[in-house]
Amino acid sequence: MQRAWPGNRTARVRGRIAHRLRTGGIRGHLLGLLLKLKLPRSGVLVVMAGWRLPEIDDRGGRIDVGDCGFFPGVRLECWRDAVIRIGSGSYLNRNTEIVAAASVDIGRDCKIGRDVLVMDTDQHALPGRPLEARPVVIEDRVWIGARAIVLKGVRIGHDSVVGAGSIVTRSVPPRSVVAGQPARVIRSIEAQS
Amino acid sequence: MQRAWPGNRTARVRGRIAHRLRTGGIRGHLLGLLLKLKLPRSGVLVVMAGWRLPEIDDRGGRIDVGDCGFFPGVRLECWRDAVIRIGSGSYLNRNTEIVAAASVDIGRDCKIGRDVLVMDTDQHALPGRPLEARPVVIEDRVWIGARAIVLKGVRIGHDSVVGAGSIVTRSVPPRSVVAGQPARVIRSIEAQS
Amino acid sequence: MQRAWPGNRTARVRGRIAHRLRTGGIRGHLLGLLLKLKLPRSGVLVVMAGWRLPEIDDRGGRIDVGDCGFFPGVRLECWRDAVIRIGSGSYLNRNTEIVAAASVDIGRDCKIGRDVLVMDTDQHALPGRPLEARPVVIEDRVWIGARAIVLKGVRIGHDSVVGAGSIVTRSVPPRSVVAGQPARVIRSIEAQS
Repeated sequence: MQRAWPGNRTARVRGRIAHRLRTGGIRGHLLGLLLKLKLPRSGVLVVMAGWRLPEIDDRGGRIDVGDCGFFPGVRLECWRDAVIRIGSGSYLNRNTEIVAAASVDIGRDCKIGRDVLVMDTDQHALPGRPLEARPVVIEDRVWIGARAIVLKGVRIGHDSVVGAGSIVTRSVPPRSVVAGQPARVIRSIEAQS
Repeated sequence: MQRAWPGNRTARVRGRIAHRLRTGGIRGHLLGLLLKLKLPRSGVLVVMAGWRLPEIDDRGGRIDVGDCGFFPGVRLECWRDAVIRIGSGSYLNRNTEIVAAASVDIGRDCKIGRDVLVMDTDQHALPGRPLEARPVVIEDRVWIGARAIVLKGVRIGHDSVVGAGSIVTRSVPPRSVVAGQPARVIRSIEAQS
Repeated sequence: MQRAWPGNRTARVRGRIAHRLRTGGIRGHLLGLLLKLKLPRSGVLVVMAGWRLPEIDDRGGRIDVGDCGFFPGVRLECWRDAVIRIGSGSYLNRNTEIVAAASVDIGRDCKIGRDVLVMDTDQHALPGRPLEARPVVIEDRVWIGARAIVLKGVRIGHDSVVGAGSIVTRSVPPRSVVAGQPARVIRSIEAQS
């Protein structure tokens, strides 16, 4: 996953925390501390815009979370020996659900919209076959629109945008805008200089 | 928004209230009074088919609601200085969610299906740009099918029907049936005489 | 609905119950007994992966359920004189919702994915017409992917697979894989010998 990011790391972290305090407030940070009890491998957590803590359904996997924001109704489901990683600066909006049977890896500064569903497995085997799980990778600064679904084996390239309600069944190149069911590239985003 | 409506106003209101009492019952009206505490600018409210009150997340905007029915799980999110208006005779079915960063205007006698999401903003700015919010207008007697999403800047013309699960990204002419992702006109509805 | 199934019935039931005890555990069975209080016409019920009981909104219809598994957030809504049937060996994943105004019939060994919505009615009449309800039939061993919607009058043939997020508006032949909005056949599944 690409980790390049403009600017100096310390300044960046400071700016991010200042931003958090503005947006999440004291309450959001206190709830974030509570959430850390369920997510021991995490950075600074902020629970935004509500009192309800996200639901962490860890069935014997490993969840690594950086400095992240969580909205109410978020649910992380991590199966035995599976891995969920969420990079710093990312947030998961209301009711987002992540299901990892193998691995779901979300980069830094991603914006995951409300009601988004990310699953690296169909959860049910086809008759006569073993359950299939293929890792999902969402690279840095990806923005996923409300109610999109990201399915097994998908890699979404950095700086891409997924339209609301899209069903992402295949990988997406970096700096692309995709939409539809199944999601297709509708345009590219020029690099910022 | 078109406000034309057949018949005499008083008779209409009477008929509507009689219908409400039949459908919503005493319980629905008592819960409606409780809901009015959170929605001071409202008409006769009825909470239907359940005990859970809708969630009103008013962050400093203005919510004007006529004589309306709300099902459990409805959520109105009104940002600072934004406006949500819902005309009389309309109802919002289970888990419908309205997000207004600028303005969401729903006409009279609209039927908003379950799990519908209406947002006048993508909630996140594209890099280097300000947050975009463009008003949504849903005219009178529109019927929006279950799980449809209505996005920023959309105007849905009066008497139109939006199919279940549609993603409405562009405006819809009056008396149209639209469906799909993105939603397209699939036929017109002839005017009733 | 097709009821053919390989193997001897007793052995099958034993295997199924053993499987249930492995997957649902004691807790799942105890909750299943509680759920039976709301579903008197049912077989062995197991509530899986959570403590929340499914919501049974029976408005005067009839709900027949075999030996089935229910995940949290499932909701069955059965209107007056309507019928919901779910065959043995089937399970309904998280937040699946069934709405029957006339009849929804789900066969045996079906896998209904999370957030699936099955409705045999649009719930609202078009102006000047009566409310339309047309039975939905989901035959044996059908697998419905996450967040799919199955609409009125649809029959899904046995052994078919519905892709995640599909909107099923027309009937599906047996042993088909369908996906999209509206769902179309994308391939057939060869019979297993």
